[in-house]
Amino acid sequence: MKLDVAFAPADLTPGDAAGRTVVVVDILRFTTTACAALQAGARAVVPAASTEEALQLSRTLGPGDVLLGGERGGRKIEGFPLGNSPLEMTAERVGGKLLVMTTTNGTRALLALQGARTVFLGSAANFSALGERLRALLESRRELLILCSGREGSFALDDAYCAGRFVEAALGGRRKWRGLNDGAIAALDLVRRYGQRWDRPLSTSASGQALKKIDHDDDVTHCAVADTAPVIPLFIERRVRIATTEEAA
Amino acid sequence: MKLDVAFAPADLTPGDAAGRTVVVVDILRFTTTACAALQAGARAVVPAASTEEALQLSRTLGPGDVLLGGERGGRKIEGFPLGNSPLEMTAERVGGKLLVMTTTNGTRALLALQGARTVFLGSAANFSALGERLRALLESRRELLILCSGREGSFALDDAYCAGRFVEAALGGRRKWRGLNDGAIAALDLVRRYGQRWDRPLSTSASGQALKKIDHDDDVTHCAVADTAPVIPLFIERRVRIATTEEAA
Repeated sequence: MKLDVAFAPADLTPGDAAGRTVVVVDILRFTTTACAALQAGARAVVPAASTEEALQLSRTLGPGDVLLGGERGGRKIEGFPLGNSPLEMTAERVGGKLLVMTTTNGTRALLALQGARTVFLGSAANFSALGERLRALLESRRELLILCSGREGSFALDDAYCAGRFVEAALGGRRKWRGLNDGAIAALDLVRRYGQRWDRPLSTSASGQALKKIDHDDDVTHCAVADTAPVIPLFIERRVRIATTEEAA
Repeated sequence: MKLDVAFAPADLTPGDAAGRTVVVVDILRFTTTACAALQAGARAVVPAASTEEALQLSRTLGPGDVLLGGERGGRKIEGFPLGNSPLEMTAERVGGKLLVMTTTNGTRALLALQGARTVFLGSAANFSALGERLRALLESRRELLILCSGREGSFALDDAYCAGRFVEAALGGRRKWRGLNDGAIAALDLVRRYGQRWDRPLSTSASGQALKKIDHDDDVTHCAVADTAPVIPLFIERRVRIATTEEAA
């Protein structure tokens, strides 16, 4: 069994993700927002590496169908109808739409994953649904990599705690240390430290603090609520959509 | 106050260390070994990026005076008289000598630090001595960066725990979270998890496991003993030597 946590995309060397089952975590806020958008009926979320690429993709994909979203420094990008808040993702706004999004950390982590077998998106919003799937997947495939998006390329407490919760869920109550890398062990240690309360590590983290500073307290609160969007988002063919039952197995 | 922990050199962007007080940690084994060598009377430890550079440096610095040491994959480098074990660093072997050393993680972390104001080396071996200095330094300079060497470029539990111990020592019992980055908070969380016992995180870590696999159990045991070499090693002008009282202040 091989269960790894990487705390930032830079921790991966090329090929580390090749052929693997990966969960990408950017709980504040991209993966939470993607879960919320899919739950609200968006057809897919298309990650873009830059504002320019987002604009270009929206032209290619057909503007009538597309909504642009994203942030820089936590703030909505000028001229984009949507930011990067899960609270914006209502059925009225995003139902049936294709969301093209660019964010500082989360979309970049996704785009850095080369050659992975399967890439899911994880957050508190889809914790129980995805956690259950991961338990079954670890059982059958015997391997799992959880990739934290981190904050500006380095360790983020919020993502690390979320990764620990998924490690715990994937292990399903077993206390098996063999096969866990140091990152997975430390992530579990954080879960022991903070217990089941998502809000504590999220509020304490630099990302949480920065969001509060620009009056996004409600986002931090919302991202810390489990199971608000019980979907299994799959990143495939350059977009994130809900996995079919077969794909999630 | 700004107290940061970086879990791997890749977590730093160029300039992150500029003008700062830095502690480099590679408890298994380079920083422990460097402390032991200086305590045993070695004049200095000169880090080299590669075996070739180590050989070249030994020629430049004068072969009569120089001892070569280091490891690849944890094992002594062929033809080098010393490996990377603190247990090898006896007064008989290294007293008065200049050690040129190349290791997988620790020496590379040192060489990656550009423009730092002061660079110390930390381990359990010099924990109380350095911890006390850090407390005074944080008081006066109001900033400190602890850089973990990590393992093959990513998170290492042994170094992260050691970093947490130094954070705790630098804070001197104060429970101030403001000014700590997410890495420093998580490192302190690890100290809460493992308590004061160095041996637990070291034994559990991938580095500890790998050393045991090649019969270096005694190194893991030794590196987990606090205060065996109460020196303040300073990296300056491309070499590590004991800091003068003035330099350590």
